[in-house]
Amino acid sequence: MMATSHSRLPEEVSSYLADHQSRSVERLLDLTRIASVSADPESGPAMERCSRKLAEQMQALGLSDVRIVSTSGHPVVEGRTPPRPGLPTYMAYAHYDVQPPDPLEGWETPPFEPTRVGDELRGRGISDDKAHVEMHLAAVEAYLATLGATPVNIRFVFEGEEEISSRHFPEWLDQTDWLDELAGCIVSDGTFLGRRQPSLSTGVRGLLYVELNIRTADVDLHSGGYGGAVPNAAQALTTILSALKGEDGRIRIPGFYDDVVDEPIFRSTLASAPWSETEWLDGAHLAAATPVGEEGYSVLERLWLRPSLDINGLWSGYTGDGPKTVIPATAGAKLSCRLVADQDPDRIFDGVERFVLKQAPPWAQVRITKISGSRPARIDPETSLARAARRALASTFGVEPALSREGGSVPVVGMLSSRLKAPLILLSFSPPDDNAHAPNERMPLWNLAGGIGTVANLWWLLGETGREAE
Amino acid sequence: MMATSHSRLPEEVSSYLADHQSRSVERLLDLTRIASVSADPESGPAMERCSRKLAEQMQALGLSDVRIVSTSGHPVVEGRTPPRPGLPTYMAYAHYDVQPPDPLEGWETPPFEPTRVGDELRGRGISDDKAHVEMHLAAVEAYLATLGATPVNIRFVFEGEEEISSRHFPEWLDQTDWLDELAGCIVSDGTFLGRRQPSLSTGVRGLLYVELNIRTADVDLHSGGYGGAVPNAAQALTTILSALKGEDGRIRIPGFYDDVVDEPIFRSTLASAPWSETEWLDGAHLAAATPVGEEGYSVLERLWLRPSLDINGLWSGYTGDGPKTVIPATAGAKLSCRLVADQDPDRIFDGVERFVLKQAPPWAQVRITKISGSRPARIDPETSLARAARRALASTFGVEPALSREGGSVPVVGMLSSRLKAPLILLSFSPPDDNAHAPNERMPLWNLAGGIGTVANLWWLLGETGREAE
Repeated sequence: MMATSHSRLPEEVSSYLADHQSRSVERLLDLTRIASVSADPESGPAMERCSRKLAEQMQALGLSDVRIVSTSGHPVVEGRTPPRPGLPTYMAYAHYDVQPPDPLEGWETPPFEPTRVGDELRGRGISDDKAHVEMHLAAVEAYLATLGATPVNIRFVFEGEEEISSRHFPEWLDQTDWLDELAGCIVSDGTFLGRRQPSLSTGVRGLLYVELNIRTADVDLHSGGYGGAVPNAAQALTTILSALKGEDGRIRIPGFYDDVVDEPIFRSTLASAPWSETEWLDGAHLAAATPVGEEGYSVLERLWLRPSLDINGLWSGYTGDGPKTVIPATAGAKLSCRLVADQDPDRIFDGVERFVLKQAPPWAQVRITKISGSRPARIDPETSLARAARRALASTFGVEPALSREGGSVPVVGMLSSRLKAPLILLSFSPPDDNAHAPNERMPLWNLAGGIGTVANLWWLLGETGREAE
Repeated sequence: MMATSHSRLPEEVSSYLADHQSRSVERLLDLTRIASVSADPESGPAMERCSRKLAEQMQALGLSDVRIVSTSGHPVVEGRTPPRPGLPTYMAYAHYDVQPPDPLEGWETPPFEPTRVGDELRGRGISDDKAHVEMHLAAVEAYLATLGATPVNIRFVFEGEEEISSRHFPEWLDQTDWLDELAGCIVSDGTFLGRRQPSLSTGVRGLLYVELNIRTADVDLHSGGYGGAVPNAAQALTTILSALKGEDGRIRIPGFYDDVVDEPIFRSTLASAPWSETEWLDGAHLAAATPVGEEGYSVLERLWLRPSLDINGLWSGYTGDGPKTVIPATAGAKLSCRLVADQDPDRIFDGVERFVLKQAPPWAQVRITKISGSRPARIDPETSLARAARRALASTFGVEPALSREGGSVPVVGMLSSRLKAPLILLSFSPPDDNAHAPNERMPLWNLAGGIGTVANLWWLLGETGREAE
């Protein structure tokens, strides 16, 4: 039977998927109930609970060799389809950790009491990235329940530190001895190009995340006794931060753009990309409904081909109710840059540090610390794996997938690319307006079901060579 | 006996004061244990507890007509010495509310568990202004315990909203019918010119306190999907705030300095004022031990004769641990100006608002709100009341008091000055390095005892005319 099916997903598998969607939703809600906020230093127990819950879900589906692998940080959860000799083996990656839920007051439903609202699911991490974990689990369930086996061998790797730049993932890579045996790697994280426009990513931006700390005195001072004659840490901070970008949207750090690769061919395709600026703008909920940014570039160019710099957080002095006339002694900011090939996070950090220290007034002690960094990466869309993914997307969604790029950073893409001999793809299903790092994170059921179908289709297509040889 | 004593405080009164210092300390610690933070919207019960405790202390001393007078805000506690017809009546003002204790982590001892450390007392509000309340109570106790009466009639008025700009004090003024009968008013709040340099104030700076709120979107956005192409509220905030002052320390708001009165005579005395810049600097605990400020003015000129502008607080985006790559949708700041005669807080607010809105990028919604304001005031140091206060200071401390000015704002000074027909003085005893609005607020016992002695001496001197007539 298998030899005759070619690229068409067997009817029993697709029927099973259609009939068992509620099981997927249940499993996904169960996982999302656990506040696996990897950035929170208090989250150890929740991370452990989440990794155990995930391992239980995997075992219940009949996966083999399910293990919770310790690292110096949060664990990696591993497992594999019951191994079938002679079939190629692919790795599937997703992550079970989530962003912090702040600001809490923005949520319409509690972030860790996930719930279905109309045709979508809501909760912190439900889109980024727990739905992508579930897509693989659902495909496993369907294949094992109907055909008793998956068309290829899959090794699942679910990480617990993606949201903190995969800090300890290199430890897992170092202790894993089967990477060379892989036929390819599917990284499941990220978004569609449009709400209804499937896409395959051709690259990710890198990241440099820093914290800036300023001290002008040992104590906050009373502005009555000191106002007008002493330094103010908040003022030093605003002076430094306001110097980082020009009114033209250009980042003013010397050398910042030196290593940005020009991509004239890809750039020329962007104007006709099936991407709706209107839809993207709708998702941003801007106060003035107009994009801003570096002069001379379109919105898509700014997001995919150009690096960016943003203040992510600010704090200083008194922020409670009512007036308090202090002159703040300390002030701080979190800042980050999205990087594009071939910018190197360490070189960019050196430039930011030099610039910040140069802008700092002589009366302020300024410290800048690198919190995390990851390299940008480009992904070849013409490998056999990428071509199979494009066919799976097309047959599931009934529309040709676009070639996109992730404005975000997926550090494992760079880490895995440099270790693997086989091709890697970044296969993502969230809508662009999923509020991934904001309140009211959401995953439409349409995207979840399409993701499950695509994964099942992709495995089937990848097994085709083996079946044709039978 | 009274008729022969002239200006010398009777021996039994001064002995009593010397022997009963520990009772003053106990009463002061009791009052400071209550977290009477008027700015805190949750502080209602604590404010009530503190006003009741203070009224109990006053009743226990034998004061008459002790009342807790309600306002739309926190109450005023009133009382008077047992009235003696024929003697002049003075009003003595101090406040029982305190600044918020933030930042809590800066305190070496808990802010509301006041304690004696060596020769000083520590706790939030112990210097500003509860010690000044106690100075009057201690003088009452000494007079009533020894002479059975005070040399003049005193009406005590202890306010509960000084730290929130005496918002509802005008209500108390409106319902008080004895203001016209006063021979003078003693406002007890503020600091000495130097640690060991008593002074009498010739004026206070005014205040304008505003809050700035910026919104660029309805939700924080993920910098991966949006970084480089959407506005950032924190960036708008730093752009606006960094424009407020020039590198020369001048405030760049058009018209800001228009109403500043030139005071060449007072200015010419400042160079020889018995004020130590070194001591003042020591108290500031600056990171770079050097003052900063408006070019062309000495430190004392900047503090007394020139207006100032400071950022008091900043907030935006993610401020927790670790990285969170949000583009903040909102940002805010608290800002305040110290004003000098004849600047008007409302006119200055208009200028700040115009300037801020002009600096605001077109993609940011900016709202600026006036939180509080008070007028600057000058005080004539040559009234009979002021001259008596200078004599009382000189005879208590053994050194001529300097004429100083408060860099801070005491809104009641302006409010009372405009209502009273009699002279007003601002009589203050805290050391300049009392950390009044910072952690580890402190009141040396030397200042407390000197304040009590001066108040007792001043009443005696004010009673002299009456006694001479007997």
